[in-house]
Amino acid sequence: MVQVIVPGVRLATFAAGIKHTKRDDLLLVECQAGTSIAGVFTQNAARAAPIEIAVAHLKQLDAQKPVFLLVNAGNANAATGKHGIENALATCQTLAQQVRVPQTNILPFSTGVIGEPLPVELIVASIPKLVKSLNATSWHQAAKSIMTTDTQAKIVHKSIVLDGETLTITGIAKGAGMIQPNMATMLAYIATNAKIDPQTCQQLLEGAVEQSFNRISIDGDTSTNDACMLIASNESTLVIEPKSPHETAFAQLLNQVALELALLIVKDGEGATKCVTVAVEEARNNTEAKAVAFGVANSPLVKTALFAADPNWGRIVMALGNHLALGTNLNKLAIYINDYQVVEDGVRVANYAEDVAQQAMQPTDICLRIALRLGKADYHCYTCDLSHQYVTINADYRS
Amino acid sequence: MVQVIVPGVRLATFAAGIKHTKRDDLLLVECQAGTSIAGVFTQNAARAAPIEIAVAHLKQLDAQKPVFLLVNAGNANAATGKHGIENALATCQTLAQQVRVPQTNILPFSTGVIGEPLPVELIVASIPKLVKSLNATSWHQAAKSIMTTDTQAKIVHKSIVLDGETLTITGIAKGAGMIQPNMATMLAYIATNAKIDPQTCQQLLEGAVEQSFNRISIDGDTSTNDACMLIASNESTLVIEPKSPHETAFAQLLNQVALELALLIVKDGEGATKCVTVAVEEARNNTEAKAVAFGVANSPLVKTALFAADPNWGRIVMALGNHLALGTNLNKLAIYINDYQVVEDGVRVANYAEDVAQQAMQPTDICLRIALRLGKADYHCYTCDLSHQYVTINADYRS
Repeated sequence: MVQVIVPGVRLATFAAGIKHTKRDDLLLVECQAGTSIAGVFTQNAARAAPIEIAVAHLKQLDAQKPVFLLVNAGNANAATGKHGIENALATCQTLAQQVRVPQTNILPFSTGVIGEPLPVELIVASIPKLVKSLNATSWHQAAKSIMTTDTQAKIVHKSIVLDGETLTITGIAKGAGMIQPNMATMLAYIATNAKIDPQTCQQLLEGAVEQSFNRISIDGDTSTNDACMLIASNESTLVIEPKSPHETAFAQLLNQVALELALLIVKDGEGATKCVTVAVEEARNNTEAKAVAFGVANSPLVKTALFAADPNWGRIVMALGNHLALGTNLNKLAIYINDYQVVEDGVRVANYAEDVAQQAMQPTDICLRIALRLGKADYHCYTCDLSHQYVTINADYRS
Repeated sequence: MVQVIVPGVRLATFAAGIKHTKRDDLLLVECQAGTSIAGVFTQNAARAAPIEIAVAHLKQLDAQKPVFLLVNAGNANAATGKHGIENALATCQTLAQQVRVPQTNILPFSTGVIGEPLPVELIVASIPKLVKSLNATSWHQAAKSIMTTDTQAKIVHKSIVLDGETLTITGIAKGAGMIQPNMATMLAYIATNAKIDPQTCQQLLEGAVEQSFNRISIDGDTSTNDACMLIASNESTLVIEPKSPHETAFAQLLNQVALELALLIVKDGEGATKCVTVAVEEARNNTEAKAVAFGVANSPLVKTALFAADPNWGRIVMALGNHLALGTNLNKLAIYINDYQVVEDGVRVANYAEDVAQQAMQPTDICLRIALRLGKADYHCYTCDLSHQYVTINADYRS
């Protein structure tokens, strides 16, 4: 494991016993004074108490003081009403007093079971230990501490040299179910030593999320607790100016980190055996291309066929047809499973060979390429298959 | 088994060997001259060749001659392009010549695997035997012959006496997967001896479908081949006049037949162990109520919790939140599992008892009642759970 450090950022994890008694389930991230912080959050109307607070606090940050992210796994603190808000604020207040910052410099996050009261005492009691153990190197432990049904910790670290100065971007994420992020993802925290003003930070984050986390779907269910944060500790002397070549280079690197994290989530999707790209080409507009891509990605019949490695392309036609207006001309439709073309001009290719199509479905990484031949808009998204293990995991989650 | 007859309607079934070699897979329905026929069809843009032809022929029926419905299971004749159209027309043509009616008096229907060429020869060769064996009493055989992944034949028969005259309504349906009908259902054929003009027939059918087949979802996937037909043989002397008390009485009976057939489909949903009503109350408008109802019904996380009989109501909150605008006030939300209230004022009820909630999840028939307390619009729909058996069936369908 590579030693990861983001100058200006310290972390600590602790086993508070919120749900998983044998592992860390609390994470504290300290961002030094002067850090730029950006965030995007779930659009689910039933969003969780900590999300409401993080959104509000983010607008009131005192940039002259450190900012702290307090994250717990095992309890989502969602559908918990005003007590949920009070509980999340109580943890913020305790932490704020210990570290001597305004309460609004604390951003709380939760992930886990929805609807149960947050065990405030367990968190409050853990705060002194967390603060005491803050250090620069706990990124791997941090990635582990936020896991719920994830089977693997998700961390991506990249760097780039600009004008002789090394900029790093480090991201951690969690998520394996209840995943079709809408304007955000499950939980992801990306940190850089780059010097970026808060507004540019927000724009860069939104751009990165749009082509990564917002394009993945495990089960079509958008969580109540999704959040993705970008932390720029401003340690480097090189300023990333808006609309500069440096910004372009930095954005590319950030996009790579975000996409790799997003794909780690898909690959660790609940019960997933395949990582699938659904690439829709030549739709009439972006809305149509996106609707078709997610329509195919979320079809249970397409997903079970992927699990079976069954080249049942008729289900792809069914799924895409459900997201196009009745009367749409599909006479030019083409469909490819990886490199093997199965549909041309709306029907099965003349020389179709079932054994070759089956072969094309065997790899772990599958691309379903759908050329609608209606216009010029393209869109792609990422998903996984629907397996027995998905049912097992989700028919057994709370027990 | 009750002997079922609809005066004016004859049927025949045959094992043509299209897919299931050991059972009937062809159905012919003869509707006598003067019959009123109405139909609703899938809104999937990739709708099948037979649907396109049935829609066109329905507009050109010669009511002075008999009308024939020709239905095959085992092959959907969808995503088959112009050859699919030619193939379906070829079967219509052969049948039309045999029974001496215009080709446009033949309505073709197909259900089964998408994308494979229709075995025209098998169907054409079977037509003489079908025509020869037409009889009044084969309703149960008819219900069986159209099954694909269905485990049970679906037939409903009801009658009513109006002005001393007995009106009967008999319906058969098939469908177990790829079920979220949109303006139609999988395949359903409903026949009555009542005397109803074609326009009234269409209105009655649309009304019945709206509160039955259009409210069910097995997997959220809308088939390419959905169709529901209402056949009024006009044998009775009593005329069902539009907007008359007789029409109201008849419509009630028709709605009952359609709903019972629709619920038979849900109960026979692929892998289903539960029949679930999702009842949304007090939404701001019908669109919102319907979106929330189907959003909850189609959530894989809600469906797996139902399979586990796990009262994981947090997933219901997540699913409904995804179909409401961000900022919607959920502080008055109430949720009931059958008779047990689990959520009040947006949070878990104060005296929540997990064992009682678990008990409420045990029955085969579950009602999830969601009171949004935002307005006055109600909507309910029907669904089933997501089980291991669903994955098994659909990861194994074509082999």
